[in-house]
Amino acid sequence: MEENSMQTLWDQRYAHRTQQMQSSAIRELLKFAELPDVISFAGGMPAPEVFPIKEFKAACTKVLEENGAACLQYGSTDGYVPLREMIARHSARYGINITKENILITSGSQQALDLLGRIFINRGDKILVESPTYVGAIQAWKAYGAEFIPVPFDNDGMVTSELEARLRAGPKFIYVLPNFQNPTGATLSYERRLQLIELAERYGVPIIEDDPYGQLRFEGENLPALEVLDSQTRSQKDCYSGNVIYLSTFSKTLAPGIRLAWVIATPEVVQKLVMAKQGADLHTSTFNQIVAHEVAKGGFLDDHVKLIRKVYKERRDVMLDTLEEHMPEGVHWIKPDGGLFLWVTLPDSLNSQDLFKDAVEKKVAFVPGVQFFAEGGGYNCMRLNFSNATPEKINEGICRLSDVVKTHLVTNGK
Amino acid sequence: MEENSMQTLWDQRYAHRTQQMQSSAIRELLKFAELPDVISFAGGMPAPEVFPIKEFKAACTKVLEENGAACLQYGSTDGYVPLREMIARHSARYGINITKENILITSGSQQALDLLGRIFINRGDKILVESPTYVGAIQAWKAYGAEFIPVPFDNDGMVTSELEARLRAGPKFIYVLPNFQNPTGATLSYERRLQLIELAERYGVPIIEDDPYGQLRFEGENLPALEVLDSQTRSQKDCYSGNVIYLSTFSKTLAPGIRLAWVIATPEVVQKLVMAKQGADLHTSTFNQIVAHEVAKGGFLDDHVKLIRKVYKERRDVMLDTLEEHMPEGVHWIKPDGGLFLWVTLPDSLNSQDLFKDAVEKKVAFVPGVQFFAEGGGYNCMRLNFSNATPEKINEGICRLSDVVKTHLVTNGK
Repeated sequence: MEENSMQTLWDQRYAHRTQQMQSSAIRELLKFAELPDVISFAGGMPAPEVFPIKEFKAACTKVLEENGAACLQYGSTDGYVPLREMIARHSARYGINITKENILITSGSQQALDLLGRIFINRGDKILVESPTYVGAIQAWKAYGAEFIPVPFDNDGMVTSELEARLRAGPKFIYVLPNFQNPTGATLSYERRLQLIELAERYGVPIIEDDPYGQLRFEGENLPALEVLDSQTRSQKDCYSGNVIYLSTFSKTLAPGIRLAWVIATPEVVQKLVMAKQGADLHTSTFNQIVAHEVAKGGFLDDHVKLIRKVYKERRDVMLDTLEEHMPEGVHWIKPDGGLFLWVTLPDSLNSQDLFKDAVEKKVAFVPGVQFFAEGGGYNCMRLNFSNATPEKINEGICRLSDVVKTHLVTNGK
Repeated sequence: MEENSMQTLWDQRYAHRTQQMQSSAIRELLKFAELPDVISFAGGMPAPEVFPIKEFKAACTKVLEENGAACLQYGSTDGYVPLREMIARHSARYGINITKENILITSGSQQALDLLGRIFINRGDKILVESPTYVGAIQAWKAYGAEFIPVPFDNDGMVTSELEARLRAGPKFIYVLPNFQNPTGATLSYERRLQLIELAERYGVPIIEDDPYGQLRFEGENLPALEVLDSQTRSQKDCYSGNVIYLSTFSKTLAPGIRLAWVIATPEVVQKLVMAKQGADLHTSTFNQIVAHEVAKGGFLDDHVKLIRKVYKERRDVMLDTLEEHMPEGVHWIKPDGGLFLWVTLPDSLNSQDLFKDAVEKKVAFVPGVQFFAEGGGYNCMRLNFSNATPEKINEGICRLSDVVKTHLVTNGK
């Protein structure tokens, strides 16, 4: 594709934008990533090589034979009970006591974000977000008229010492991705987790903890979830009654194509979300819930995430090594201890959106950093996904990308 | 902060939001229907006996073997292309020329209603609805602040001679279920379809045509969809460019548990819906779309709906016969030519909500008519579903219900 027609296509796609409802940059970029021969670091797609296809096939056969009518019938809005009970048991291993009444199954985490926006956000409400943050959350909540207050961010996650001044602005909630954050891959340190919990409690501001990647740690010690730390500050109860709303998903551990995620919150918040979900899509696919429960139960998921960690760690390492070898001086990146993403910062003189067009010409794609800043910023940054491409492709793609960066540096006279 | 004060804070903050969002009557009533031994005419569930379990099993195996990675991966927001192309081909048989650009796949029709509310409705907007109408639409649109203008309804559907005065109020759109309407089972006559199209066009008000049951006609001639009649008033085009937004679903012809439905509209409206859907749930399950396409393709669906029609016709006939035999004088009902529902009108002196409590005591359930009136009414009416229970249960359940009605008539001194 020529550069001009590329620009036209880009402009046409974004001409649809309105103030209240932005077209998701991620979804649009995936279309470029699908162009032939492009090595894409742009999406957030799992490695297809680790999809448990065999297990899904066996599970579909089993549940349709044993329980076919229930699989295909309408289900309850809150979700399939054995699946919610399994999630509750799994959460107990991490030190949090919840029951199925604390859990709502959603049609992917994007729906959880949307439903939270629906029940909490009134036009003009302020939300504290990491800067940068997950673009899907910005999109979901802008539709409800949210305003975003960015909190500075570094290699240890949200800079919590900067939080208190912003809490005085009366935000509706704090949104945080503590593990291998999207887009940066950075992890919120233990000390900052404690400080975040303490400040949120003191100011009476709920935390939304988005944790799609927590199980995908390659190295280092697991840090306790904010929800766990919050529950430790409270008297023992059967049900979680705290200040954190926790989101996770099967998209990164089983498969995104089944659109299955969950929210953990107090029973009162879950009930409000259930009412919102009734109007939004009645319930999440019964079939997918029963199949996912069948695949995940009996310890399979524990073994399977070990495989995913191994595959992704190898890919991350290839990406880190190739960046180290080929990127010119002045280019920096955060080394992620897990997850799917790596964040690269270019010299100030470079603009990653300009670079993007040339990169696609050279058949390599990424997401320009600016997409992840609710209020602007990150013009010299880019998000690289290392989960989807094979190690060979990662090596080749980073070489191509390094060439584009070098060319731009020369053009800029550096 | 103590837990109690936390809860109070949340209640104070969010009470005004939750007031806007009613818990779905249908979903709540389904809970009664699930009580042991209750014969339920309350839900809208298909007969489990006609679910194509064998075909789903074969399709899951086939698509996972041949196309497993694509089944489990993220997909595009607008939907799986072969499925959209199949729907376009199928629509062409009914006289409407559309392409995949006219089609959005949604996570059930409830999501289609929600997304339409999201892109069209501003607080205070007026919507013309049949009176009674589908309760899920009321719920979806009330969340966006819609106000409803009821249009009178009789055995031939919306009374279109009453429409023009209401169109002068400047409604945002007209919502209509032309075939075997939920809740009444009534069908909009051909003459009224023409008048509706003509008036909507003249006043520039779009029509949302909700057609989940259109293929389930037991007797009489199929009437053309509003979308077809509308397109006939326009010059030939490759793409549908008209005034009707058409909704249908696989819930009643394949299975509701896979949550698959679709919207047909102009490409411009589809694009707006796509943007809204990106924020709502990214996309509908890839796996379910590919499986449903595999099951439905090659003519299976045509044969399968013939089976469903046969089974449902038998159940409707049993219900009609038993009503005729056992209901006391003064009780009337509309004979539906298809679909899943039958509408019963009791003598004015009876209130079907009072009756509901005694009915559940006697182990039979229905939906009180008042639930389907956006602005009140139908206190002496009830909706009966005849698709879910077996003929034997239908007979037994209607006998029980007739006894309850007789008892209430005696209590009321009639």
